[in-house]
Amino acid sequence: MAKKKEVNVAVVGASFMGKTHSNAWRKVDMFFDAPVKPVMKVLCDKEQSLLDANAEKWGWQESSTDWKALLERDDIDIIDICTPNFLHPEIAIAAAKAGKHIVCEKPLANSLKEATAMQKAVDKAGVKHMCGFSYRFAPAIQSIKNMIDKKQLGEIFHFRAAYQQDWIVDPDFPMVWRLKKKHTGSGALGDIGAHITDLCQFLVGDVSEVTSAMETFIKKRVVTDSDTGAWAAKSSKKSKVYDTVDVDDAAIFLGRIKDANTLATFEATRFAPGRRNYNCIEIYGSKGSVIWNQEDMNYFQYFNRSDPDLLQGFRRVSACDTGHPYADAWWPPGHTIGYEHLFAHEMYEFICGLKKKKANYPTFADAVQCQRVLEAVEKAAKSRKWEKVK
Amino acid sequence: MAKKKEVNVAVVGASFMGKTHSNAWRKVDMFFDAPVKPVMKVLCDKEQSLLDANAEKWGWQESSTDWKALLERDDIDIIDICTPNFLHPEIAIAAAKAGKHIVCEKPLANSLKEATAMQKAVDKAGVKHMCGFSYRFAPAIQSIKNMIDKKQLGEIFHFRAAYQQDWIVDPDFPMVWRLKKKHTGSGALGDIGAHITDLCQFLVGDVSEVTSAMETFIKKRVVTDSDTGAWAAKSSKKSKVYDTVDVDDAAIFLGRIKDANTLATFEATRFAPGRRNYNCIEIYGSKGSVIWNQEDMNYFQYFNRSDPDLLQGFRRVSACDTGHPYADAWWPPGHTIGYEHLFAHEMYEFICGLKKKKANYPTFADAVQCQRVLEAVEKAAKSRKWEKVK
Amino acid sequence: MAKKKEVNVAVVGASFMGKTHSNAWRKVDMFFDAPVKPVMKVLCDKEQSLLDANAEKWGWQESSTDWKALLERDDIDIIDICTPNFLHPEIAIAAAKAGKHIVCEKPLANSLKEATAMQKAVDKAGVKHMCGFSYRFAPAIQSIKNMIDKKQLGEIFHFRAAYQQDWIVDPDFPMVWRLKKKHTGSGALGDIGAHITDLCQFLVGDVSEVTSAMETFIKKRVVTDSDTGAWAAKSSKKSKVYDTVDVDDAAIFLGRIKDANTLATFEATRFAPGRRNYNCIEIYGSKGSVIWNQEDMNYFQYFNRSDPDLLQGFRRVSACDTGHPYADAWWPPGHTIGYEHLFAHEMYEFICGLKKKKANYPTFADAVQCQRVLEAVEKAAKSRKWEKVK
Amino acid sequence: MAKKKEVNVAVVGASFMGKTHSNAWRKVDMFFDAPVKPVMKVLCDKEQSLLDANAEKWGWQESSTDWKALLERDDIDIIDICTPNFLHPEIAIAAAKAGKHIVCEKPLANSLKEATAMQKAVDKAGVKHMCGFSYRFAPAIQSIKNMIDKKQLGEIFHFRAAYQQDWIVDPDFPMVWRLKKKHTGSGALGDIGAHITDLCQFLVGDVSEVTSAMETFIKKRVVTDSDTGAWAAKSSKKSKVYDTVDVDDAAIFLGRIKDANTLATFEATRFAPGRRNYNCIEIYGSKGSVIWNQEDMNYFQYFNRSDPDLLQGFRRVSACDTGHPYADAWWPPGHTIGYEHLFAHEMYEFICGLKKKKANYPTFADAVQCQRVLEAVEKAAKSRKWEKVK
Repeated sequence: MAKKKEVNVAVVGASFMGKTHSNAWRKVDMFFDAPVKPVMKVLCDKEQSLLDANAEKWGWQESSTDWKALLERDDIDIIDICTPNFLHPEIAIAAAKAGKHIVCEKPLANSLKEATAMQKAVDKAGVKHMCGFSYRFAPAIQSIKNMIDKKQLGEIFHFRAAYQQDWIVDPDFPMVWRLKKKHTGSGALGDIGAHITDLCQFLVGDVSEVTSAMETFIKKRVVTDSDTGAWAAKSSKKSKVYDTVDVDDAAIFLGRIKDANTLATFEATRFAPGRRNYNCIEIYGSKGSVIWNQEDMNYFQYFNRSDPDLLQGFRRVSACDTGHPYADAWWPPGHTIGYEHLFAHEMYEFICGLKKKKANYPTFADAVQCQRVLEAVEKAAKSRKWEKVK
Repeated sequence: MAKKKEVNVAVVGASFMGKTHSNAWRKVDMFFDAPVKPVMKVLCDKEQSLLDANAEKWGWQESSTDWKALLERDDIDIIDICTPNFLHPEIAIAAAKAGKHIVCEKPLANSLKEATAMQKAVDKAGVKHMCGFSYRFAPAIQSIKNMIDKKQLGEIFHFRAAYQQDWIVDPDFPMVWRLKKKHTGSGALGDIGAHITDLCQFLVGDVSEVTSAMETFIKKRVVTDSDTGAWAAKSSKKSKVYDTVDVDDAAIFLGRIKDANTLATFEATRFAPGRRNYNCIEIYGSKGSVIWNQEDMNYFQYFNRSDPDLLQGFRRVSACDTGHPYADAWWPPGHTIGYEHLFAHEMYEFICGLKKKKANYPTFADAVQCQRVLEAVEKAAKSRKWEKVK
Repeated sequence: MAKKKEVNVAVVGASFMGKTHSNAWRKVDMFFDAPVKPVMKVLCDKEQSLLDANAEKWGWQESSTDWKALLERDDIDIIDICTPNFLHPEIAIAAAKAGKHIVCEKPLANSLKEATAMQKAVDKAGVKHMCGFSYRFAPAIQSIKNMIDKKQLGEIFHFRAAYQQDWIVDPDFPMVWRLKKKHTGSGALGDIGAHITDLCQFLVGDVSEVTSAMETFIKKRVVTDSDTGAWAAKSSKKSKVYDTVDVDDAAIFLGRIKDANTLATFEATRFAPGRRNYNCIEIYGSKGSVIWNQEDMNYFQYFNRSDPDLLQGFRRVSACDTGHPYADAWWPPGHTIGYEHLFAHEMYEFICGLKKKKANYPTFADAVQCQRVLEAVEKAAKSRKWEKVK
Repeated sequence: MAKKKEVNVAVVGASFMGKTHSNAWRKVDMFFDAPVKPVMKVLCDKEQSLLDANAEKWGWQESSTDWKALLERDDIDIIDICTPNFLHPEIAIAAAKAGKHIVCEKPLANSLKEATAMQKAVDKAGVKHMCGFSYRFAPAIQSIKNMIDKKQLGEIFHFRAAYQQDWIVDPDFPMVWRLKKKHTGSGALGDIGAHITDLCQFLVGDVSEVTSAMETFIKKRVVTDSDTGAWAAKSSKKSKVYDTVDVDDAAIFLGRIKDANTLATFEATRFAPGRRNYNCIEIYGSKGSVIWNQEDMNYFQYFNRSDPDLLQGFRRVSACDTGHPYADAWWPPGHTIGYEHLFAHEMYEFICGLKKKKANYPTFADAVQCQRVLEAVEKAAKSRKWEKVK
């Protein structure tokens, strides 16, 4: 058995997303038969303590506090950016210039301007680039994409999505970097609204115009020492006790789809008690309908208008059945997978695509297109009218 | 046992809604102990054949093809209007002038102007008036109303509603009166969007402004002889084969609630395959959340933020349990009720209210307020900006 | 329009079941087009107060405290028995002798011996007879029966049923007639186990042998004045405070199906907190599976092994869709029906069958066959081995 | 940071379960903070090709085709047995004699006699021992166990379980080692019935007696070259085309619980179309009820009889919420986990227990007790009467 070519990976950022990606890189080679073998070379973070605690545990060969140094190394092929949002552009642009392939968590950047600059950088450098819209990689979403491509849902009338969470409903929940515009760009909109926007564009088509409302239900939050995001922690340790939440707690918007009659509704909120991480989409078309939500991610509902009379109904499809390209890599049908597996699928597609023209994953271009929508949503919330996505 | 005072009822309109109301009037006295006893006096329709077929079967003492004659009779106390929408104003205003108490199916009228005139007429006449927003009378909705009144959900962040049907998805489904503006006012918006708008206003508060999109997916429908609505049938029998659908197939809108930070999203559509009559609302508040849909109407989901850690989750509450004022009238817990029971509750509340100041049911004023919202939705769809509800 | 032949009905028993049947008789003519018209002639009960309160309200022309007198009247065609179980045999046998057609609530009798005598009486008299296994009349059950008859489920491997309630879990719930052997025969077994046994026999085949366990979790109950069943109330008003529960609170049993390899499991219990009236069956066959429960009675789940790969799953079929013979009588698809409608279907089938050879409803013969199974279950619980159903 | 003590692991068997366990061992150190660090030393299988393909990929330092050689090595602390069932006793007994701690997949052995010998061997050797009843390690099951221990469900009335699969419904599915008694002991009973029996004993109490039925729906299967289980493949490659299935396709049984009035029903089947891996338990107690199934493993349903009137219902509890000892190791609430995580929990508990007296996992003693029940079930199926579990 000829040995596979290896590609060396460095992850920048050793918090929540860094852990998620580390786990994904580790699983790829064990479960999938990709044309190349990813090697977990370096875990990088500015906090040495995080590296000490995690680098070896998570399976990395080395660790580093200097992401710039990584770019100078010849033995690093892929830079995988898992830092807070505001650092994405600087790292990505530098990595592109250094000729590294890039994985970057979403949202690509805190502004459309920066995101566009990133896209230009990767295009110019000719490197591969992926933005982490992980939910595309749910087996059910892939099945739905496949159905839509084959016209099994017919003409799409409605896309209806809600991404609901409840982790900050408590007014005593403290200030964190995800609630400050300078670190995160926007609130629920950019964090989770981005996911349902991307799913819409992946499955149904580009959003061409939007109207919206945004709201911050709790305007001030107490500042504590223990910010959950290490990168931002320093700047929020201030003497005063309360800080202003300057991003949205919730964003709702309507959209039209380019060159189609499709109506789209979106709701992104961190104020839906009981919804821990409820990312739910509904698609209604002339031949049938599908419904999916992340909390029940191994299944999706499918209504087929061609089913016989008196036997029609939404079918709870087991997405991970035998024959599904992702599911076959894991366990037998009915032996469920979870959130972390989405990331393994994502990294698998990325390394499969290193030698291909066509990306089977969300590129920076997709992320920029998503950012355009989000920017239009913010604009519409202020202008109080429909805004074109430019 | 002293005999109860009787109130005599006449229903105008012997099609679908006439049947629904007849059944409801029949059930009230059998199952509820109201202070007065409704007597099913006259069923009225302009089609003699409908009366011949149905008047006795449905339990009516008499029948008539002349609704005006009913108004002159002293022995009719309540006029219950179940005709197509465009006839509501004429009949209601005349009935008010004749001093009759009035039940009128929704939407109250095809325009805000007419609806307002109707409200003025009943106010001037001092008669009791109810508009048939029947879903208010689901036991679950009453329980939710009660919870909100008691502040059990806290401050409301989100109201999210969809009323989805699929009866005209087939492009071969023919032209019917519900698809012509002059007979029906608007399409999905007025027919089913009205219900979720009313539920929002009943449960959460008045909608103060809206932004929207409306769409007609299938622009032309074949004309047939057998319109399902007798009243409009004559006028639609024309020589040409196709007729234009001039009302909306779907309407989506966002709203703000008066004097609150609540965000509201609405979707009313007849183009959601698999959704036969899916009237679904979600309410998220600072203390908890509730979710209900008509297709599973005996239950609602309730999330209580005060439930103990690790035992939190949406609870599928059996709304018709012992102790519920409506449910107790019917069967033991778990022995479900259905769509038709909503109307019995509605008529029960109306006759209970004949001697009371405070209406425990939707009045013409509520219906006018609903109409204001729908009119703002239509305006916003054209102006492409947020419109105040005036 | 020629007037339909009328058939005159008398219901004996004006408590819960009497009300349910009265409501059903009233609905039949309004909603169904049967070949004859049922006339609600007499409501009979030994308690005059119940008749005073209910006879007119429920739509009866007359009332009577003497069921024997009814049998002598020429103008009564159908005797519908809704008394406590122990009175069924006497009334039914006398009614048969008097040439009346008979509807009798289930269980037919408190013992197989009595049930058999009843069957003999109706056979000898040549009258029509139906036993009230109402769940057969759920639209979903009729659809499932139809599927099985057409071999759409293939060879049946498993029938798995549970009928769970929770109305007596509270140890302070008082003694009632349903907990005394002499009034009721058996407990959960005869009351609700009978229903799932009948559904098994209706859908899958006769139970040929059983093994079982029965349990009385709460052995003594406090005696109160207000027994819910009027007929038995007198005898339970005793001086002592506690009375022994001498029937089963729960019965579980396994069965084999005649001339088949099918395995059947049954659970009937009044001790399942949260299950108000959860009558649930699952059927697994070589071509597909179905699942239904009464608390969600408008739907059933259907798995079709022939569905395409990667689109397989249980389909939540809307049983009451257009084209279903029962559903078409009521409301449009998605406008749900409830428990009481089962009884209207039942009475409809009975009067349709008055002139037919083949009964499209459960006869006394079916009820006797059910009783044989229940008797074998009781025997097996004592013998502690498999018992043949004789 | 002091380095943790390491324990060296060898897995024997490189098929499905070997992969599952390898993945689990790999995850333990990354996600949990156990007192010792497991080192993945050797993967062992008699098929060199499986080792070549998998050993490195799955994270093992070495590979070996000789399990006996492993026992002689001082640097192996834990032997984890993932071979087909019939090899468990020989390997386990030898490993015990060699002083190794032992993890063994379930069922422990193909007969009670062998299982008992295994238990004696580990007891004599004084080594730690765990049998892989992995479903105990679902976060929901741990929560339910905790609730029962705290008496939150009160006295248990009913345990009702079904473990349903459908992978051999197709009559063309070929002969595999899991369908031959000599390799597997029993069929559905030992493979999946063992899991629900163990869950009953873990949660509710020991089964003291049983009555049962077993069935083989498809009696002969075609023999192919590609048995899915490598260990047994050789022996089943015979010249004739069909081979007899000599184990059960389904087993149903009733049970009584030791020193309690609890009734238990069990159904284990590979013939339930649509049920890919549906392991479902229901527990009804005097204070409340719980329901869980593996296909929706991140949640369980909980009914609390103390919930307020009119707000009662089954609550869909998110088991993996903040504060759950297993869930905290993974992702935020609502970010689901899957089947493979159960095994990580299992290995975590085992290595945590290496220095403790009390096992927080299923021991060989638990497995023997389970085997006793299974053996009584088989006996009862033949004797056709209730059999004591001895």
